[in-house]
Amino acid sequence: MPLIFWLVPLGSLMALGFAYYFFRQMMSASEGTDQMKKIARHVREGASAYLRQQYKVVIIVFLVITVIFSFLAYGLGVQNKWVPFAFLTGGFFSGLAGYFGMKAATYASARVANACRTSLNSGLRLAFRSGAVMGLVVVGLVLLDISAWFIVLNLLIPEAMDGYKLMTITAIMLTFGMGASTQALFARVGGGIFTKAADVGADLVGKIEAGIPEDDPRNPATIADNVGDNVGDVAGMGADLFESFAASILATALLGAAAFIGYGTEIQTKAVIAPMVIAAIGTLLSIAGVFMVRTREGAGQKELLRSLGFGVNMSALLIVVASFLVLYLLQLPNYLGLWGAIVTGLLAGIAIGQSTEYFTASAYGPTRKIASSSQTGPAPLIINGVGTGLISAAVPLFIIAVAITLAYSFATGFSFDVGKLNYGLYGIGIAAVGLLATLGITLATDAYGPIADNAGGNAEMCGLDPEVRRRTDALDALGNTTAATGKGFAIGSAALTALALLASYFEEVRMMFVKFLDRPLELINGIPAIEASFMDFVTHYEVHLMNPRVIVGIFLGVMSVFVFSGMTMNAVGRAAQKMVGEVRRQFLSIPGIMEGTTDPDYARCVAISTREAQKEMMLPSLIALLIPVIVGLLFGVSGVAGLLIGTISSGFALAIFMANAGGAWDNAKKYIEEGHFGGKGSEGHKAAVIGDTVGDPFKDTSGPSLNILIKLMVMAAVVTVGVAVSYSML
Amino acid sequence: MPLIFWLVPLGSLMALGFAYYFFRQMMSASEGTDQMKKIARHVREGASAYLRQQYKVVIIVFLVITVIFSFLAYGLGVQNKWVPFAFLTGGFFSGLAGYFGMKAATYASARVANACRTSLNSGLRLAFRSGAVMGLVVVGLVLLDISAWFIVLNLLIPEAMDGYKLMTITAIMLTFGMGASTQALFARVGGGIFTKAADVGADLVGKIEAGIPEDDPRNPATIADNVGDNVGDVAGMGADLFESFAASILATALLGAAAFIGYGTEIQTKAVIAPMVIAAIGTLLSIAGVFMVRTREGAGQKELLRSLGFGVNMSALLIVVASFLVLYLLQLPNYLGLWGAIVTGLLAGIAIGQSTEYFTASAYGPTRKIASSSQTGPAPLIINGVGTGLISAAVPLFIIAVAITLAYSFATGFSFDVGKLNYGLYGIGIAAVGLLATLGITLATDAYGPIADNAGGNAEMCGLDPEVRRRTDALDALGNTTAATGKGFAIGSAALTALALLASYFEEVRMMFVKFLDRPLELINGIPAIEASFMDFVTHYEVHLMNPRVIVGIFLGVMSVFVFSGMTMNAVGRAAQKMVGEVRRQFLSIPGIMEGTTDPDYARCVAISTREAQKEMMLPSLIALLIPVIVGLLFGVSGVAGLLIGTISSGFALAIFMANAGGAWDNAKKYIEEGHFGGKGSEGHKAAVIGDTVGDPFKDTSGPSLNILIKLMVMAAVVTVGVAVSYSML
Repeated sequence: MPLIFWLVPLGSLMALGFAYYFFRQMMSASEGTDQMKKIARHVREGASAYLRQQYKVVIIVFLVITVIFSFLAYGLGVQNKWVPFAFLTGGFFSGLAGYFGMKAATYASARVANACRTSLNSGLRLAFRSGAVMGLVVVGLVLLDISAWFIVLNLLIPEAMDGYKLMTITAIMLTFGMGASTQALFARVGGGIFTKAADVGADLVGKIEAGIPEDDPRNPATIADNVGDNVGDVAGMGADLFESFAASILATALLGAAAFIGYGTEIQTKAVIAPMVIAAIGTLLSIAGVFMVRTREGAGQKELLRSLGFGVNMSALLIVVASFLVLYLLQLPNYLGLWGAIVTGLLAGIAIGQSTEYFTASAYGPTRKIASSSQTGPAPLIINGVGTGLISAAVPLFIIAVAITLAYSFATGFSFDVGKLNYGLYGIGIAAVGLLATLGITLATDAYGPIADNAGGNAEMCGLDPEVRRRTDALDALGNTTAATGKGFAIGSAALTALALLASYFEEVRMMFVKFLDRPLELINGIPAIEASFMDFVTHYEVHLMNPRVIVGIFLGVMSVFVFSGMTMNAVGRAAQKMVGEVRRQFLSIPGIMEGTTDPDYARCVAISTREAQKEMMLPSLIALLIPVIVGLLFGVSGVAGLLIGTISSGFALAIFMANAGGAWDNAKKYIEEGHFGGKGSEGHKAAVIGDTVGDPFKDTSGPSLNILIKLMVMAAVVTVGVAVSYSML
Repeated sequence: MPLIFWLVPLGSLMALGFAYYFFRQMMSASEGTDQMKKIARHVREGASAYLRQQYKVVIIVFLVITVIFSFLAYGLGVQNKWVPFAFLTGGFFSGLAGYFGMKAATYASARVANACRTSLNSGLRLAFRSGAVMGLVVVGLVLLDISAWFIVLNLLIPEAMDGYKLMTITAIMLTFGMGASTQALFARVGGGIFTKAADVGADLVGKIEAGIPEDDPRNPATIADNVGDNVGDVAGMGADLFESFAASILATALLGAAAFIGYGTEIQTKAVIAPMVIAAIGTLLSIAGVFMVRTREGAGQKELLRSLGFGVNMSALLIVVASFLVLYLLQLPNYLGLWGAIVTGLLAGIAIGQSTEYFTASAYGPTRKIASSSQTGPAPLIINGVGTGLISAAVPLFIIAVAITLAYSFATGFSFDVGKLNYGLYGIGIAAVGLLATLGITLATDAYGPIADNAGGNAEMCGLDPEVRRRTDALDALGNTTAATGKGFAIGSAALTALALLASYFEEVRMMFVKFLDRPLELINGIPAIEASFMDFVTHYEVHLMNPRVIVGIFLGVMSVFVFSGMTMNAVGRAAQKMVGEVRRQFLSIPGIMEGTTDPDYARCVAISTREAQKEMMLPSLIALLIPVIVGLLFGVSGVAGLLIGTISSGFALAIFMANAGGAWDNAKKYIEEGHFGGKGSEGHKAAVIGDTVGDPFKDTSGPSLNILIKLMVMAAVVTVGVAVSYSML
């Protein structure tokens, strides 16, 4: 094992260590008054109850899938025998990360509110470092699992001819991503339905019917709403990016093993560990970045944003330098080109974040225009939001298209020759790793959002001093911006990761095909024979655009995306309706709620959200898991290939559309509340509240769930590749 | 020329003759009172003024494109020299069809209202036969142009070896579809923006602010709204289906020439004329079907629907029998399989229509659920509509996926062998022809909708007897149902046509490639050599899913769809806002409007809609025309192939989503107005009006415009194929 590999376990331990340090630091802060403690406990208990319930369901699903994988591996022999174990550990670690992150967030909220009683700076630091717990736990556990498996498999898998050992190891490790994917699916879909059922339900009765403000303790659904922020935005987002981080590294490792299979074990090993090491370095730099975030008292929103941005940007800048050093030290062939691919990925991530900000922040034209159309009522506001959302999806699609072209070109030395395809695919993979390298700190800024939001809710519910609430509001407003760019980042990373996974799907099929051909792996004109067989593979499996199975697959891929997002959307509608019924019931039947003399029954609202989320998440999840297998059985490899690219391209577009339209409506409402176009209470404001409510499931349920869908369907295809290859009917 | 070919010009002349007969019949009916004449004249003049303005813009666009095509043909030599002429005639005939259809519709409305003063039956017959003018003019002119070009080119194109003569002829004729496409683009986009700017504008001020009913003569935008029905739903729909009809026949002719190129001229000719003859027979049966539509006085909506359905279904049933006879007489190889493909196409069209009805009619669960969610306000209603619309898109995607698989399998004798690919593509083409065979009568039921709508408007504005208005309302309600299924039919036919066009794109590239290889066209193991070269072609142009250019192309295709529909959506928002300003201005500044003593300035509202539509349609149209060329220049054939499949699949899905969501909101509102969930004037009704207004640009602007986009982009790629082949950069 090259010495540099040990940076990976080191990065993992450092991340986990600092996560623990930040967690202890946060826990040592005071939680404030008894009232603050009580509210925080309600939220914490609700979130834990939800997560326990969710994990119960997930464990059953995992057991079923493990049985299936065991049958495929030990019964039919079309899967590697390690797969069930890798699948289980992936799921376990992802679940653990979500649990820790959510714990930290729910412990932090009251403490952040309390810290704001001292100063804005201490509030910001506490909130951000509590968010960093989540970020560092996620990257730490991913790197831990990866390094442990890599070491173990290196010892246990027997040596094989022609670099097949590393191919086998990386192929097994990739199925670790399937566990993370499955866990993330339930976290995003279930959490997304939970949070928006509570939020929409609370808004519909509280804000619109009863006319009480947001986060008012008289609203029975307000605790459920706060719980939702934690299970949806913290645990869900964490599981989502856990998976992207893991899958991008593992897919790239496999692509590296395949690309350099004819170059001898030393170079091949370097190509395999390169993405791991870059991720580890990124993790170390993220920790450094966390320490750079601080602000002065009385800072405005711009200044706060700048101080967060400083930490993130410094980490990104340093990773540009550090990744060059890593690649230089590894002396991989064309290391300069690979470095270009990494920088491309990083820049693509930043550009997508910028475009998200442009389309959703009220500082820019699009959101202001949406706000202005509130003057003619809710219908024009919604038409305008949908129109702008659709247009906004075009920009990241374009960015990813450019990024693919550049990353591929850099990695192949600007050649589109099929003989260099392998290097190009590795380039796309490593671009995804570059995009995600600074995840530790990016995720910290994401998780910061709901923590600040909850701190504001706590301050509001406990009736803290106006000055304190001004400070929590400042932190919350900042959180909305980081949440929006974070969403763009999450979707962009999902798309690039899914493409890297798609490439590794092709590599896995091709490996089977090459084994089947039994070609020796000698060089032909300096190109390994395995590359020369690329077109044979295309010919054999007919993964070309004239094959009707490919076309049918693409149509079915788009179909999956639409039906999945429609179902999650309707799930929120149904669950919110139940919540509305419950809140109305409590207002009518519990005397003294509106006067504030009796506490509403918060727990019942949490229970309703929990039950509905669990019920509603099953069918869409089943679709995501089963369709790739069914298409594989019917149409074989070519159908699956079409299915995946159809899912990735349309799912990515729909996800951006939904996230941006929802974000823009949210901020248009806030812009009006700041006093524009009539301000709070005007007809325009009412229209904007409707738009905001419509946008809730767009941006927090269906949109983010699509991130998982596009990765999970590829993952499911990757791990059941043997089925499509051996048992396809048409 | 085989004798049976002469059915094509015969069908054309019969269609045009009966169109004229129905037109004269309609013109001989009385237009009613002076007031009725006045209102009808306003609408007619407004529609003519709009169409004149639109044709002025379109003529300029046509001249520019003709110059470009002439340069490509005569300057660079990468295009056939006939292309500019075929392009011009296609555009001319499509424009002519739109003009006649709209004339007939605007002459008919007052006459239908007047006929309803006599009886429901005479109203229905008059309205339906006036719609049939449009239907028959469209199919008649398509068949006229096709048969004329086919005869002329057969005489003028010199004989060539190995069936290349028919390849050349069909390739030239296909560019006739490009003219129709371009014309349709402006008709759909411009007409769609016009009609919804007027409709939304009229509703926002009239219904919501001033509280006056729809079609109230006091509303200044009401004439513009009625004009819009004619330019959008009649002329726009006609141009759309003109193109589908033409393109499906022409693409299939080309696919037939390619599939049977090694079989000698006789069989090849039969394969080429088969789609034309089937379309001609369908036209004759459509005329028969028109005569079968009649109803008894006092018929309920179900009975009315049944009488329309009887005509359409009888035509469809007869075409099943007749197409079998045609194929039997032609004695094409595997004629039974081809007949299976035709029946598949027909059934797919019916199934898509049924699914549209299920998801949008208030007789079924989905729309009722949307209506019921109005009880918790506009936000849940919109969330529910979006969710249901997304799910509803899955069904037609699935239907088309099944139809492709079946049509392909029937045509190849259930083989997915690459050697039979050609026959399979021909099968997909002929399925599209089957779907569209009964267009004459289907389009009559579509055009009937806006005629009945306008008749109702005329009756309302002229304050006719309640009994008469009850009758026009019955006709109008029926029109809403036929409009919804008609939309499904239009989108389904667009998708299948676009796929047939995509197949012919591949054939055109392959022809260039085969010429370039200079292979003789003898049989190899019974398979013509040109088929054996399919995989060579795939290899050469790398149209496979591992090629990054294909992936980038797919992303750019999805991007085009999203940006195009977002732009058309926002265009309606902006134009409606202008209309709102004008209507508000008139209410304030013209005294006596609200009392009904002074006429509002109708013409000014028509002028605003016209100006805005012309202004707003340019940019999205430019995108549709330029992107295929730019992608071809950058990424070559493989990039274009990806672009097209990305556009078709995601555009189809988004179009269905938008059409169905919009239709469901519309009918949910009507369902509430019938007295459910609180009825007219309730809070739920207000919510439903908001939903309906949001749905207007969904279902009548962006959705239908996507039909054109998916066909036009393929067309643009087909006619500029020489550019992508000869000048691509990467």
